[in-house]
Amino acid sequence: MPHTLSQVCEILERYAMQPTLAGDGRRSIAGVATLEEASEEQISFLSNPKYEKMLAGTRAAAVVCKPEIAAPPHLNVVRVADPYAAITVLIAELHGYRRHPRPRIVGGAAHVAPSAVVGENANIHPGATIDEHATVGRNATVYPGVYVGPRCRIGDDVTLYPNVVLYDDTVLGNRVTIHAGTVIGNDGLGYAPIGGKWVKIPQIGIVELGDDVEIGANCSIDRATLGRTRIGNGTKMSNLIAIGHGTHVGEHCMFVAQVGLAGSVEVGDRVTMAGQAGVVGHIRIGDKATIGAKAGVTNSVADGETVLGAPAIPVREMRRQVACLMRLPETTETVKQLDKRLAELERRLGEAT
Amino acid sequence: MPHTLSQVCEILERYAMQPTLAGDGRRSIAGVATLEEASEEQISFLSNPKYEKMLAGTRAAAVVCKPEIAAPPHLNVVRVADPYAAITVLIAELHGYRRHPRPRIVGGAAHVAPSAVVGENANIHPGATIDEHATVGRNATVYPGVYVGPRCRIGDDVTLYPNVVLYDDTVLGNRVTIHAGTVIGNDGLGYAPIGGKWVKIPQIGIVELGDDVEIGANCSIDRATLGRTRIGNGTKMSNLIAIGHGTHVGEHCMFVAQVGLAGSVEVGDRVTMAGQAGVVGHIRIGDKATIGAKAGVTNSVADGETVLGAPAIPVREMRRQVACLMRLPETTETVKQLDKRLAELERRLGEAT
Amino acid sequence: MPHTLSQVCEILERYAMQPTLAGDGRRSIAGVATLEEASEEQISFLSNPKYEKMLAGTRAAAVVCKPEIAAPPHLNVVRVADPYAAITVLIAELHGYRRHPRPRIVGGAAHVAPSAVVGENANIHPGATIDEHATVGRNATVYPGVYVGPRCRIGDDVTLYPNVVLYDDTVLGNRVTIHAGTVIGNDGLGYAPIGGKWVKIPQIGIVELGDDVEIGANCSIDRATLGRTRIGNGTKMSNLIAIGHGTHVGEHCMFVAQVGLAGSVEVGDRVTMAGQAGVVGHIRIGDKATIGAKAGVTNSVADGETVLGAPAIPVREMRRQVACLMRLPETTETVKQLDKRLAELERRLGEAT
Repeated sequence: MPHTLSQVCEILERYAMQPTLAGDGRRSIAGVATLEEASEEQISFLSNPKYEKMLAGTRAAAVVCKPEIAAPPHLNVVRVADPYAAITVLIAELHGYRRHPRPRIVGGAAHVAPSAVVGENANIHPGATIDEHATVGRNATVYPGVYVGPRCRIGDDVTLYPNVVLYDDTVLGNRVTIHAGTVIGNDGLGYAPIGGKWVKIPQIGIVELGDDVEIGANCSIDRATLGRTRIGNGTKMSNLIAIGHGTHVGEHCMFVAQVGLAGSVEVGDRVTMAGQAGVVGHIRIGDKATIGAKAGVTNSVADGETVLGAPAIPVREMRRQVACLMRLPETTETVKQLDKRLAELERRLGEAT
Repeated sequence: MPHTLSQVCEILERYAMQPTLAGDGRRSIAGVATLEEASEEQISFLSNPKYEKMLAGTRAAAVVCKPEIAAPPHLNVVRVADPYAAITVLIAELHGYRRHPRPRIVGGAAHVAPSAVVGENANIHPGATIDEHATVGRNATVYPGVYVGPRCRIGDDVTLYPNVVLYDDTVLGNRVTIHAGTVIGNDGLGYAPIGGKWVKIPQIGIVELGDDVEIGANCSIDRATLGRTRIGNGTKMSNLIAIGHGTHVGEHCMFVAQVGLAGSVEVGDRVTMAGQAGVVGHIRIGDKATIGAKAGVTNSVADGETVLGAPAIPVREMRRQVACLMRLPETTETVKQLDKRLAELERRLGEAT
Repeated sequence: MPHTLSQVCEILERYAMQPTLAGDGRRSIAGVATLEEASEEQISFLSNPKYEKMLAGTRAAAVVCKPEIAAPPHLNVVRVADPYAAITVLIAELHGYRRHPRPRIVGGAAHVAPSAVVGENANIHPGATIDEHATVGRNATVYPGVYVGPRCRIGDDVTLYPNVVLYDDTVLGNRVTIHAGTVIGNDGLGYAPIGGKWVKIPQIGIVELGDDVEIGANCSIDRATLGRTRIGNGTKMSNLIAIGHGTHVGEHCMFVAQVGLAGSVEVGDRVTMAGQAGVVGHIRIGDKATIGAKAGVTNSVADGETVLGAPAIPVREMRRQVACLMRLPETTETVKQLDKRLAELERRLGEAT
């Protein structure tokens, strides 16, 4: 059902976002789109100032932006302090989150062990497996090809996308979402060199994910050798991330794609790791630390610190280092010239004495 | 059926490769192999000059190489301008591409929603799922464990290897091949920090792959938040690649394993990205650009430019920088010596005045 | 069944680990845990000296450590030369490796082609597929969602965790373990540029894994274009690793997560590769070489060599380079000052003459 632009502003008011409207409140809004792709019935937004010049060309019915933006006069504009948060609210209200209807599938069934316990209203698709003594909470959606191993304990309102694999004894909190192909609880790289061969150490620990954790596609989180690998409440991870055995990640962290953490790392709360960053084992990453893209972190990072580079160092030092590195060919040439000029002076002074 | 070496040359003539044969045209050729492994009934090739010394030892019936190669006199040689292209043709003609016969499987069936539409001659294996309102084109091969989500639209002659996952509304062109375990259309890392928590932004966009796209194993391509993530016609990707939401990749690009692109990247046509390269969001990579292995690209790259390093810079600058970096210990020591020598001069001149 | 601490020492004696016990041999030991998490009925260990201070606070019934460790007097201590090996033995003896019981699954069956041959006592789970002419050895465990392609040959005592995919003609030795989601034998990135388009080279080679190989989750090992991609006996790999076509890895190697090898690499025996390392194609990594985390290896590495950095160089050179790099801002400033001081001298000397 379409809203008017005034109704859209009322939604934002409900979220205490204090929108101010400049334009036609009766304009009909059917949904949200980018500046480039929006049609006359869609609302768009400007959050990254880099795209400001696109305001002139958009066909959008209205644009959500910051107070200081000078939009073209013909454009309906909703001004809020945080356009990104506002558009998040509008996408959720106008489009909603993905629904997981019970499909009418022909030709298959779920594979459920008799000792498994599945909560009420859970939707276990044909081709999913729930193994012995596993428990799945209420309202769970378990897509085809998912494997829930023996004795796993899964909370309520969990979504496991196709082909997710949970090894034995994995624990998931409530409202956990795991995207397709991700593997939780596989054995880590635990071998002892005994007599010139790698002898496997039985990995008898588990993995535990807190509430509201979301993990992207094709990740891998090792079970602990002993004890548990833990991901705290509210932490979100992107795709192709590898977490080593016994590592503990705090709450409300955000990891970008292809991040890799070795084993026994202690990560605090609200830590951000950018893409392809790597962290060696047995160190601590402090609360609210930020690890830059491609950083190679070899030492513990203090609370609130931002590090960059490989080996990673604090960002202000890395910026100076990179600036000097970019001038290194010139510096090297200068050194060569200094050597010559100095030799010349030395020669002349040698003659002089 | 074996060919004679003369017939092999005729195949290359059909492709306008103008082969010249030195040797015995009646020699029987049953297939293609490497110089090291070829038997007396197989033809081999030399493309990388690094391996030229292996010509002496090969047992191959004949070797395809460049005109300027001086092969041992006993060896049958087919000379062409591009041996790599020639051997590609010969593998395709003598061995052919993988066939996907309809297996005679016992004990299972495909899971197909009644509202799904599957084209004629499509081969949907037992254990594959085609969800509600999805359409699959003619001659498709859909292996076990594949999940085709609601409302996906898949072209003709598509091959989906085992355990590929297509989220809802994914669009694939004709002749698309996706290797095992790859996930297309999963939600990207889209959260807004509202009130100190990560609030998920519904990811209402889609992924669209053009014709003749081939994607390797265990990759992940995020659906767009709004609009579409797009991979252009003829683009080929290797394994374990992560593509962020809203990124657009042009036509006929080639990405090597473990490349990662953040969201909202614009990649032109015929771009090459080497292994483990990473690209930050919201920048443009120009047509025919080349991104070196492990590069960390933080700024837009011009058409035809080759960049290397992290942060990535044009290759000729990076080569100078690396050369200086390799000499940095010596340069640093020279600076230390210069400082001493200069202090000595200053001392002497101080005394002199 | 619980052991006494004396019985635990007897186990270690059986493995010729020559334990010496200081403490109460009658103490009951039910299992193994970390220093932090051990209860009064569990034995723990100290291997990494970094954690020595945790000895004071542990509740463990006993601790395995090196002879030179001065443990608190109240603690039962078992001293051995190699605590890590000892605790490996104890975990294996007291807890054992994962068992793979035959589940009592309702609602599904394995998909087995009539021409496939499955050895005695093999456990093929519902939802696994064994395609035409494949052979699976004795005592194999094949979890749900596994796909074993046509003509694969799998040895005895093999474990394939859920959703592993083996493409056609893949060969696995005895006692191979492959973790969930890993893909073996997919086509590599083999295309020839012919007439301005990428023409696919049929990938007619295979992948062969030796005995006792273990591969982590969500890896990808390309089949060879011609011949074979090979992983030698006893080699262990972690998660999200990409191995290119035609690469040969030796025996008893250890690869950490997210390592990537291009095609046609020759890796010797007992090579260690740390996390996120990458290796370009067509080079050799010598026996017992060590490749550091995030290294970008662009040249062959000698036997026994340790390399670091990108481009990777021998570790002692890299350490000097990094040390100089960390001082580069100061060195650059010194050069600037030297230039000024030298100009001043030149000026004065110019005046003097």
